[in-house]
Amino acid sequence: MINVEIITIGDELLIGQVIDTNSAWMAQALNKIGFEVKNMVTVGDNEKDIEKAFDRALLRSSIVLVTGGIGPTKDDITKKILCKYFDCSLRFDGEVLKNMEELFTRSGREINPLTYGQAYVPDASTVIQNKLGTAPATWFECDGKVLISMPGVPSEMKWLMENEILSRLKATFKQDLYIQHKTYWVEGYTESALAMHLDEFEKDLPGNIHLAYLPDLGLIRLRLTGKDENEQALSEAMQTQAAKLQAAIGEKILTEEDKPIESVLGKLLTQKSLTLGIAESCTGGNIAHTLTTVPGSSQYFNGAIIAYSNEVKISLLKVSPADLDKEGAVSETVVTQMAQGVQTALRTDCSIATSGIAGPDGGTAEKPTGTVYIAVAYRDKIISQKFSFGFSREQIIQRATNAALLMLYKLIK
Amino acid sequence: MINVEIITIGDELLIGQVIDTNSAWMAQALNKIGFEVKNMVTVGDNEKDIEKAFDRALLRSSIVLVTGGIGPTKDDITKKILCKYFDCSLRFDGEVLKNMEELFTRSGREINPLTYGQAYVPDASTVIQNKLGTAPATWFECDGKVLISMPGVPSEMKWLMENEILSRLKATFKQDLYIQHKTYWVEGYTESALAMHLDEFEKDLPGNIHLAYLPDLGLIRLRLTGKDENEQALSEAMQTQAAKLQAAIGEKILTEEDKPIESVLGKLLTQKSLTLGIAESCTGGNIAHTLTTVPGSSQYFNGAIIAYSNEVKISLLKVSPADLDKEGAVSETVVTQMAQGVQTALRTDCSIATSGIAGPDGGTAEKPTGTVYIAVAYRDKIISQKFSFGFSREQIIQRATNAALLMLYKLIK
Repeated sequence: MINVEIITIGDELLIGQVIDTNSAWMAQALNKIGFEVKNMVTVGDNEKDIEKAFDRALLRSSIVLVTGGIGPTKDDITKKILCKYFDCSLRFDGEVLKNMEELFTRSGREINPLTYGQAYVPDASTVIQNKLGTAPATWFECDGKVLISMPGVPSEMKWLMENEILSRLKATFKQDLYIQHKTYWVEGYTESALAMHLDEFEKDLPGNIHLAYLPDLGLIRLRLTGKDENEQALSEAMQTQAAKLQAAIGEKILTEEDKPIESVLGKLLTQKSLTLGIAESCTGGNIAHTLTTVPGSSQYFNGAIIAYSNEVKISLLKVSPADLDKEGAVSETVVTQMAQGVQTALRTDCSIATSGIAGPDGGTAEKPTGTVYIAVAYRDKIISQKFSFGFSREQIIQRATNAALLMLYKLIK
Repeated sequence: MINVEIITIGDELLIGQVIDTNSAWMAQALNKIGFEVKNMVTVGDNEKDIEKAFDRALLRSSIVLVTGGIGPTKDDITKKILCKYFDCSLRFDGEVLKNMEELFTRSGREINPLTYGQAYVPDASTVIQNKLGTAPATWFECDGKVLISMPGVPSEMKWLMENEILSRLKATFKQDLYIQHKTYWVEGYTESALAMHLDEFEKDLPGNIHLAYLPDLGLIRLRLTGKDENEQALSEAMQTQAAKLQAAIGEKILTEEDKPIESVLGKLLTQKSLTLGIAESCTGGNIAHTLTTVPGSSQYFNGAIIAYSNEVKISLLKVSPADLDKEGAVSETVVTQMAQGVQTALRTDCSIATSGIAGPDGGTAEKPTGTVYIAVAYRDKIISQKFSFGFSREQIIQRATNAALLMLYKLIK
């Protein structure tokens, strides 16, 4: 089995100034071509810690992917350590300079001496050009294993992985294992209730197929993961187990696509040629933002009115001032009027509206922080629901977004 | 020095299904009380890998924080491994059951046998009640070191850290090191140009103060980090260096607050009692969302019109149909009209408008993917600018959001 280890380098990670999103992205990309990540490690810009991480990784893994620490400034020391570790020196690489010159000409800047230093690369490595930045990737081989150093900037790392590194890894390492995941979004169970319901199913699973539960914002993501050396046999075994699972919980499966709810909803809207408008108060634009992260969303998403102030609720969404006064902005009456108002204003088939208290201030005994009303409309059908989403502002906004998208999905499905 | 290691457990992390945000949050919280995180490690739900991670962590760190793998289902094995590792068995804990009963009563559910199992805890541990969930934290001591197991659900981990664990760590470990960070957002330099400019300053830094460069969306975050056993001496040394740094690049420092631009802008709007409205096309709600992640944003943020379709640009933002036709939606003329239109529609002092091509489709030779026009208005002053933000949809939306907030900040500062 080809084990992969990911090492991310940077003090900014260890002090929590930056969240590492690279490792998850790399793991997904590697899984798709049959490589398994067994360890992820983060260390600071510190010689000893980086060397120890290299030692351990090369001992237990065939492929070591390293990101970070190769910028032009003094705090970036990975390149120096790579030279020492692989007992080599720096050599000038004309291709790296040429690539930098193209980048700088395009943006009308001049290469200064520090940037120029990026054209020096460890001479024990194969250099992989980075079309998006000044630091190339470098590929080291030792005892049949490889260690690849890449920039930590996510867009540059992704470009290098997609265009160069994944294909080279596939060519270098014979794929001896196939990995397949199948994920279901299941509604209407708590994690433990679902586990009890699936107890027999789980006991009867073959040894190479594994079931995992991932509770996520009111739903359970249920994941079957299978591994086998024979791709055909694995596909068949996965299909058999998937059929059994569907027989057990079929009606509670929301979707079999391992995609976020905004993609699942977007696909349904496209299929049915429906348009959507959003009226957001407490979620402050997050529903519109979430929908528009999906490429092609302009097909069905007309727009949104973020009505943070009552004035905007009245002027653009035609909410009744009397009802606002009587019931308050956070009420079923107002959120229903918001959903209708945005349907009219943006002339859409469907709409979503939210109004709630995201905190930390604004909560009362009757309507504490976390209280959110959501209404969804599909032509002349409107439904609304009251939720309690906890204490944290971030979590309330995120949960309300998910719940709203899910409510609309169920209404039009 | 008190070293901390963070171990996150879960197959969902290793296959990239979930991004680990817990580690960064914990690192920030620990830094504030003088503890340094030296290693972050992620392993799967696998007995051997978890045990090895415990071994290494307890060898090199005084405090080991573990999250994940303590849910009620079969794939969660951390509790079993903790018993084996600390050579103890499970005991029933009445307080944990009582806490679960309260949680379940509140949400009107019944405790099933699997959930009931959560009341069994390793008897070598001190149990720390988790008011937000069924899995308590457990605290193990061995040879003057501690290992603490917590749930992986971010809200539960944060609640436990803030209310219980940080204070207990402070009481257990004498703080022998103080850590101070000071961060500046610097504009108008590339990373290497700034590093060359600060070469002398950096060479003259005392050994316990370190300078780090973090390029981020068109700005550089410059971070001074100091460590010392004497808090007073550290504060003084940091002040001296901060003054030198300001003398060197004073006019290019955008802010000294280590806060995202939306907070910095929000503070300025509050100070000046200004209101803000947003008109978004290509950013699809992300600017409104970003602004409303800041508590108290309802003070200055009236609302937004997300005009994804041209129809909405015309009907709600009063963009001229003739100009839309002649110049196209992605143009200086249209984005300027959008900024004026939203100022009028939402009656605000300031506004931001965006129109661009976020891709992957829609680009042309003249206006390739990544082309974004941004306009910002402050009363009757309006400025607009054209940008090229690269290839990736996610990056284009994020960069446009930052650039827009920054443009408005500079206009009203």
